[in-house]
Amino acid sequence: MEEELLARARCLVELLKTQGKTVATAESLTGGLVAQAITTQPGASQVFGYGFVTYWEKAKTELVGVPASAIEKYTVVSGPVAAAMARGALERSGADLALALTGLAGPDGGTPQCPVGRVYIAAADSKTTWVEQADFGAPGRQAVRQLAAARALALGQKLLLGQSLPPNAEEYEP
Amino acid sequence: MEEELLARARCLVELLKTQGKTVATAESLTGGLVAQAITTQPGASQVFGYGFVTYWEKAKTELVGVPASAIEKYTVVSGPVAAAMARGALERSGADLALALTGLAGPDGGTPQCPVGRVYIAAADSKTTWVEQADFGAPGRQAVRQLAAARALALGQKLLLGQSLPPNAEEYEP
Repeated sequence: MEEELLARARCLVELLKTQGKTVATAESLTGGLVAQAITTQPGASQVFGYGFVTYWEKAKTELVGVPASAIEKYTVVSGPVAAAMARGALERSGADLALALTGLAGPDGGTPQCPVGRVYIAAADSKTTWVEQADFGAPGRQAVRQLAAARALALGQKLLLGQSLPPNAEEYEP
Repeated sequence: MEEELLARARCLVELLKTQGKTVATAESLTGGLVAQAITTQPGASQVFGYGFVTYWEKAKTELVGVPASAIEKYTVVSGPVAAAMARGALERSGADLALALTGLAGPDGGTPQCPVGRVYIAAADSKTTWVEQADFGAPGRQAVRQLAAARALALGQKLLLGQSLPPNAEEYEP
């Protein structure tokens, strides 16, 4: 899984270099794993400058401007919160693409409404925000985090390449 | 090396839980690796809420308030910049402890004044700021990053435990 994550990071960094674009991150459950994967690549500083690890709700509101009302209305593990994290990271970094993740890595804390392994992954650019809902189940805390991080990199790549919205994703207002 | 990093993260998280304290991070060359290691631990949200990945100089000034004059005077890979990153992360997060890293992971970019593998690691609390200079050499980009991240976790642990300043470290004004 780690290999897949690093391979995805390499692809995204190469694509960003080719397109002359930059990426920023806002991460909750992955805690910096996406930024870390991107910066394993030599020359990552050409395409990556800013990452926000917003583990607490307060950090989501303070660092990337997620409205507290959105967290209250939709809960912190939700599509609207993932979308707001990505928009905030985009604006505060000035990057061309932002990736954001909020979810439940486990092992504890699952509920019928929000099981362990549920992750909302957002990719935003100046034109749109995509949010994908993923249910990775409970293969273990670190496995969920790695799967989610790899999926975020893949979603960003799809958006950069102008591909169509994945079937399990929704488009949000920019 | 990854095992050492995760073991160090586990120790620090347990110690923080015992002391009822929290930690924040500000990372340059490690790109989120320290935050990621901390959040591999279940229950990390008890002790960690905010992480800043400040890969660009502009991100260091904007996200954690490093004075541009300090970067100009001392260069971005320097003790004063590491200290300012840690102080800024401490203030902006409200955490009890902040860890910060700036350095050169390589493989390129080394100079006689700043060789590949040179890292400044800071740990700050309300009373003091410690900055350790480490020279990890050139065992590879990811190895330098992992060694640096593990060293940061160890430095934070020493500060929390009230141990004495390590021999290769200096104390800065809080």
